[in-house]
Parts: sequence; C-alpha cells; structure tokens
Amino acid sequence: MSKEFVKEITAQSEDFSQWYLDVILKAGLVDYSPVKGCMVIKPYGYAIWEQIQNILGQMIKDTGHDNMYFPLFIPESLLQKEVEHVEGFAPEVAWVTQGGQNELGERLAIRPTSETIVCAMLADWIQSHRDLPVLLNQWANVVRWEKSTRPFLRTTEFLWQEGHTAHANYREAEDEALLMLDTYTDFVQRYLAIPVIKGQKSEKEKFAGALQTYSIEALMKDGKALQAGTSHNLGQHFAKVFNIQYSNAQGVLEYVWQTSWGVSTRLIGGLIMAHGDDRGLKLPPEIAPIQVIIVPILANNSKEVLQTANNLAQQLQQAGIRVQLDDRDQYRPGWKFNEWEMKGVPLRIEIGPKDLEKNQLVLVRRDTGNKTVAQLTTASSQVQELLIKIQTNIYRQAQEFVTSHTFIAKNITELKQILDNQTGYVQAMWCENQECELQVKEQTRATIRNIPFNQQPVSESCICCGKPTRTMVYFARAY
Amino acid sequence: MSKEFVKEITAQSEDFSQWYLDVILKAGLVDYSPVKGCMVIKPYGYAIWEQIQNILGQMIKDTGHDNMYFPLFIPESLLQKEVEHVEGFAPEVAWVTQGGQNELGERLAIRPTSETIVCAMLADWIQSHRDLPVLLNQWANVVRWEKSTRPFLRTTEFLWQEGHTAHANYREAEDEALLMLDTYTDFVQRYLAIPVIKGQKSEKEKFAGALQTYSIEALMKDGKALQAGTSHNLGQHFAKVFNIQYSNAQGVLEYVWQTSWGVSTRLIGGLIMAHGDDRGLKLPPEIAPIQVIIVPILANNSKEVLQTANNLAQQLQQAGIRVQLDDRDQYRPGWKFNEWEMKGVPLRIEIGPKDLEKNQLVLVRRDTGNKTVAQLTTASSQVQELLIKIQTNIYRQAQEFVTSHTFIAKNITELKQILDNQTGYVQAMWCENQECELQVKEQTRATIRNIPFNQQPVSESCICCGKPTRTMVYFARAY
Repeated sequence: MSKEFVKEITAQSEDFSQWYLDVILKAGLVDYSPVKGCMVIKPYGYAIWEQIQNILGQMIKDTGHDNMYFPLFIPESLLQKEVEHVEGFAPEVAWVTQGGQNELGERLAIRPTSETIVCAMLADWIQSHRDLPVLLNQWANVVRWEKSTRPFLRTTEFLWQEGHTAHANYREAEDEALLMLDTYTDFVQRYLAIPVIKGQKSEKEKFAGALQTYSIEALMKDGKALQAGTSHNLGQHFAKVFNIQYSNAQGVLEYVWQTSWGVSTRLIGGLIMAHGDDRGLKLPPEIAPIQVIIVPILANNSKEVLQTANNLAQQLQQAGIRVQLDDRDQYRPGWKFNEWEMKGVPLRIEIGPKDLEKNQLVLVRRDTGNKTVAQLTTASSQVQELLIKIQTNIYRQAQEFVTSHTFIAKNITELKQILDNQTGYVQAMWCENQECELQVKEQTRATIRNIPFNQQPVSESCICCGKPTRTMVYFARAY
Repeated sequence: MSKEFVKEITAQSEDFSQWYLDVILKAGLVDYSPVKGCMVIKPYGYAIWEQIQNILGQMIKDTGHDNMYFPLFIPESLLQKEVEHVEGFAPEVAWVTQGGQNELGERLAIRPTSETIVCAMLADWIQSHRDLPVLLNQWANVVRWEKSTRPFLRTTEFLWQEGHTAHANYREAEDEALLMLDTYTDFVQRYLAIPVIKGQKSEKEKFAGALQTYSIEALMKDGKALQAGTSHNLGQHFAKVFNIQYSNAQGVLEYVWQTSWGVSTRLIGGLIMAHGDDRGLKLPPEIAPIQVIIVPILANNSKEVLQTANNLAQQLQQAGIRVQLDDRDQYRPGWKFNEWEMKGVPLRIEIGPKDLEKNQLVLVRRDTGNKTVAQLTTASSQVQELLIKIQTNIYRQAQEFVTSHTFIAKNITELKQILDNQTGYVQAMWCENQECELQVKEQTRATIRNIPFNQQPVSESCICCGKPTRTMVYFARAY
C-alpha cells in the first residue's frame, strides 16, 4: 500500500479539522468506505485498537469482570421498555426489517448499546443474593445513525467495550461506577498519556436511563474537549422495568442496582488530537504499535549496515520492545524519516556506514526531535530508558497544554471572550439549574463537560443567573 | 449464577441432540436470547472463544497477516456485483432499511461475509506489483438468516475470523489458500485435539464465487461430520468484477488473484461434540479456560486445608497453569466434582485433611477418571506432565473414534446400509459428476464432505453410476 506517500499535511494552526483528516488518512489509520458514515480501520489504526483492547481488557478482567457476548439485534419491544432510554436512542437506531426474503414481524434494532438485552438476560440469571454481583463486559460493534460523522470521533458503526453489572444495593453500584471511572482514568493517563478531568455529568448530559453519569474529559490541541469515557450508575430504573429481582439474605425480594460503562474507538481520535503536531501523529510509547523504527542509511557497505540493523532489531525485540526495520529499497532515508514521524513512532534509530565504524547508532526522539548517539552494545537498555522518558514527556506536554488552556470566567461575557480568542476549558460556577446550562450553550456553543470531583470554586455566583452557588463546572466547546 | 445446578443430562446414546443442548446450557457456555436464532455466549463459552482468538490469532499474524476492520454494512449494489456470490448469499441476508427516522435510499446488507466490501477497498489500495501481496484478516460478527438454528453450529449471528488476501498470480493465491488450510489443520488438531480430513470441496459445495474451496472436516461423536474451516482460492472472479488491477514489473495491468478463509464459533460446537461424553464436556488442556480445578475437602481443620489449597493455586498459576480454586461453601465436594466434570476441566485436584497430614494431594483426570497421588512439593511439574498426557490422550481417543467410524462403500446400497446402522465417514469413489452427487444425497442424505488430498482409491468405479474413476471422496451426513 505504498500509495500513502508522505507529502505536506495542513498545519494545525491553519485548519485543525483538515489536519486531522490529513493525518488519519496519510498515516494509514483509516480509510473512507462505500458505506456512508462508516470507516474502514486499516492495519495501523487497528493495531492501536488492539493495544487498547489488550491493556484495558486486562484491567477490566483484573477488576473481576468476565467477557461475554450478547446478540447484535434487539427486538423493538425490548428497546422500548425503558422510557428515557428509548427516547435517548430511538432517533439514531438502524432497523432491520427484512430477513432473507421475508418481512419481519417485529423490527430489530441494531444495538446502539446493550442495556436492554443485557437486562432481559439478567432477569433470568439473577435469583438470589448469592448470584450478585454480576460483573460482565463485552467488546463489540455498535451502530448509531449519525447525521454528520468524522472517523473515530463519531461514526455510524464503531467499536467499543461495554461493561454491565448488577449489585445488591446502591452503595455497591456507586462504588463500581466510580471504580470503572478510575480504571479508565488510570488507563487513559498512564498508557495514552492524556490527562483527564474526572467528574459527574449534568442531568441534561447524562446517559438515557441512568441515575448518574460520570465521565472523563480530555482536551484536544484545538482547545475543544472530548468525552473520553463514561460510567453510569443506572440505579434501579432498568431493574424495575425488566423485573430483575433477587431474594436477599432474609428471603425478601429486592430489585438489583446496576451500572454500565464504556470506551470506544473514539479514544484513538483523542490520542491523535491530544498529542499530534504539524509533522503528524505523536504516539506515546506505551500504546504505540511500533515503538522503535530502524532506518538503515545505505551506501557502499550496505550489506554490513543491513546485517547490523537486523541484529539490532532482534536484540530490541528480545528485550520486549516493539521494533520494526524499514529496509525497503525504493525509498530514501529522508523520505522514511518523514513517513515514520507522520506515523508517530516514538523513537527512530539511524545506522549508517560511519556509525558502523564507530560501533554506534543515532537515536532520534519523535516528541522533542533530540538526537542522541548510543553504543550498539548498550542499545536496548538506552532505548528502554528513552521510551520511558518519552512517555513521561508526552504526558507532561499534554498536561502543560491543559494548564495553559484552562481559564476562569465569572460571567457569560467573559466566557464568550475566552472562547472567541483562546479556546480550552473554562472553569465557572453554575447554580445547577438546567435553564442556565441551556442559555450558556445557546449563547456560546459551550457545554458543561462535567462537574469535576476536584471542586475549586472560582467565584460565589452562577455564571448565568448570578445566584449564589458552590458548584464549579468545566465549560468547553466539545466534539 | 448458581442456578446452573448439576443434574442428569440426557445420555448421548439416547438422544445426541438433546445431550448437546443439555451440556451447552448446563455447562454455562450459552443461553438462548430473546432474539430468534441468536445466542448469548456466556463467560465460560466466551473464554473458549478468547483462547481460540489468542492462539489462532497469533498463528494468523505469524504467517504475515494484519488485522483490520471493515464495516458491518454492505450496500445492496455492492453485494450484487458478483453474480454467483449474490445468488449464494442473498437468500440469507438481513437487510437494514431504516436509519433513525428515515427510510434508506438503498438497502444495506448486514455482512454475511465481507468479500464484496473488501474488494471495493482493494480496488483503491492496489496499484502496483509492489503493493502485493495484501494479507488481511478481521475478527468480526456476521449474520446469515437461517431457518433452523442450533447454538454454535448454526446461528443467525455468529463470530468468526475472515482472511482476505490478494496476490500477483494463481500460484501465490493457491499457495496462500493451502497455507491457511494447513494453519487451520495445525490449530484444530494441536489445540482442539480434533483430527481432521483435509481436502477439496466439490463444485456443488464450494463457496459462492470461488474457483476452489478447501475444507477441513471433523467427525462428531454421533457419527455426523462437521465442516470446521474453509479456505477459498477466489481466482480472479472478484477482481474482474471489482476491477482490482495492478501494474506488473513490465508496467502492464493485470487482475489480482485472491483468497479468503474463515473459521467461526462453530469450532466450539465441534469441540463439544468431538470429545464430550455422558458426564458433559471434555476439554483438551491446550484450549481449556480452566485447566485445573482445586476442590478442597473441608472438615475439622478447614483453615489449613484452604490455606494449602490457596498456596497450591498460586504455585500452579506461577507455573503458567490456568487454575481455579473452588472454595464456595454452599456446595459439597461431590456436587463440585460433578459440576467441574460437566464443564470439562481436564484435571481436578482434591485436598483434604488426610492429604494434608501426608503432605500430598489427589489428581483426577477428566479423560480417563484415573486418580493419582502426588506430593505437594512437586505438584506443578506433575500437573504439567499430566496435562500434556491428557492432551495427547484426548486426541488419540478422537482419532480412534474416527478410525472405527470410517467405512467403505462400493455402491449406494452399501452406503445406505452403513448410514442406517453405524454412522460415520464413508469412503467411496465418485465420477465427479454432479448428477451422481445429487442422487446420493437424495437417496441417503449424505453429502460429499470433501475430496481428500490423501487419495486412497477404494474401488474402480463411481458409487452411483458405476463409471470408472480414480477419485475417492468422503461421504457423511453432516451438520
């Protein structure tokens, strides 16, 4: 697929949206498909998703959850059982009406999310308090019929994991919802190197059918926010509608308390926009499918250079480093440098005839552009150290961006000014009245990202109505 | 989910079909769902699928294939491009006709398989001989609207992997198709411990749109055959319809040669029916999600027994063994023995107060029922050795079953007699005329499973028409 030649990509400052599309296509992450709103995830993009699945998947198992698989289809009658839920999702459901040559008696929704089908099964599986908690997870595709789409960020079909749990009481469900929010936080910060704001969604923004929704929010380099993961305490809403009851230790029937939580391929969009620059992707080593690319500089003694590069690749691989050797002969080294920078590979190794003489190699960091000379014999330990430094530095860079793009507004005028000049998070006070939330949105296109757990009041009165309040929220324009 | 209590399951000899359903439900592999023809794969069943994904997935990567993801939907016009293909699949396609509130302009098929959408993309990606070969794979769900379904064996939605490749010439495509058939063979025999017959499908039974279809066939304990995996040389059929061309080294445009190949959750059905017995599942250690179950026999000195059992579990886990300790106090040991036998765990460890005194434990094999006493100090090496023996023995048992259930027929009367008395594979000669194939099917309900690569003529003339032929085939009634 050599068609992906490296050429200029649009500068972020010129048109961030176009930069994003340029990068994802040219780095070979996705391609458009003949199906409206659906993307093809290409090998390099899918390799990132597999990294996410491997690492987060293990974290989900380590917290006691079992993977399983529920059907793609949800009968219309099932989807309609929970009123808020169906109102939230009905507008974006894809419907199967024909199977083979026959018109179906009842339409089947393609799952936009699986709460209803999960609940239908839980009602059958749960009888006694001994059956609780039920801790389930599935990795699956879901479909939401979106009007305007953008690869990874909002597509008609996307890939995700969705956790579904049932508990004996409110406290346990709440603890679970918060545990999974913490798990997401840990994963996104530690592996994707993206700092997040943990908090609670407003009533208006919460999941259709939930008691409370918690989210982690991330800041992209254009100053817009991205909801990176959500965790819902569903309360007993679904349990009552689907009649999911258990007999407690005293033999009395009670409804279960439930949670659900998910992250999706959207995280890949976040990864691109939180770290990328005008040279392309910038992947943190912990998640990068290729951590190190070796580019041999071939001249007279090509054979020896290639041999050394090959040995080095093996040496690094044995040290557990994800390394690749680019020995294609139809491209010049400079072209390769650009291509691998575009693809965001954290570390590049150059080896040429002169390096060979000195038994050395050159290491070039993607995050800083810094070059270091290393000895061949100690290469793998130096590479490992550098990868750790790069991971830390990419997180630090992202954190600095958040800090320098977090503002305070005391009234709507200030909020508008900030958003018109420098975008980012805006901390402001809110009276918790939905009327004010809607007014701010209408006037500024900014929404409440969440009510952060880490509350630091920035004034005494609501940004909109001026009523006294102690609740600080993050406003931002968002994806 | 303690509802899965162990009780009698139907004997295989009494009603094999009912035995199968009893086992899959009671062992907690699947459950029926509110969606007709769709199953819920429960954690224990899904864990087997994850084992398959991990092992086979790595084998597919090791043979140079990249994972990626194509859309779930295929526009009707795309599906209809290849004539044979659409005729083969149209009768069993589920159609999306509504998205959100709107009627769609063009119906969308839910992929029954992905050749058409893959080809649409390949036409864009492939330009030069340098782009070849393209070696892709995806793990995905597919939908085929089946009239009668059975969990794992034939369901409306199922999970699978589908490989798709493009090559410069016939030879490379043919080599690829055979390489993947060999990969499947290796996987199924080595890990699932199921002996298979490798061969070519007849024209009638080949994949819709393929040049040649190769298959591996397995024999179930009721004497019926199961197609366990297929690999297709697609020739240039799709390339010509989708216009997938590359310029060769001389700059001349040529159509590519393609393959596709897949295995599905059907393998789990095969695993159950190839090895299971009247006590339930019998899982080969290499694929078993739980290889060893420790059941403590609690009496006076429960605490010490539990402590020892816990230490042992840790010790085995550190040795890389998939072990679980069943310390539930609401069930008696005898009940647990039955349950874990039902679930097919290859090895059970019993530790009681008397064993503690002697610093020993009891090992019980699922495949033979044999008991051995082992010393606590050397437990993990003994367990490892036993697991290898069990794997070998389960394969041997299955191979013996195949040998004792493979018959020879020289004419239809003989074939009928065999199938009416003792079912299994029947080796017979065939003139390669479809007329004869159809007649045999009509008269005996047996189909040609494949034309085995390992040809051993059993007579000189076609089982049906009596014409001279040198082609031996395997007939069987099949799932």
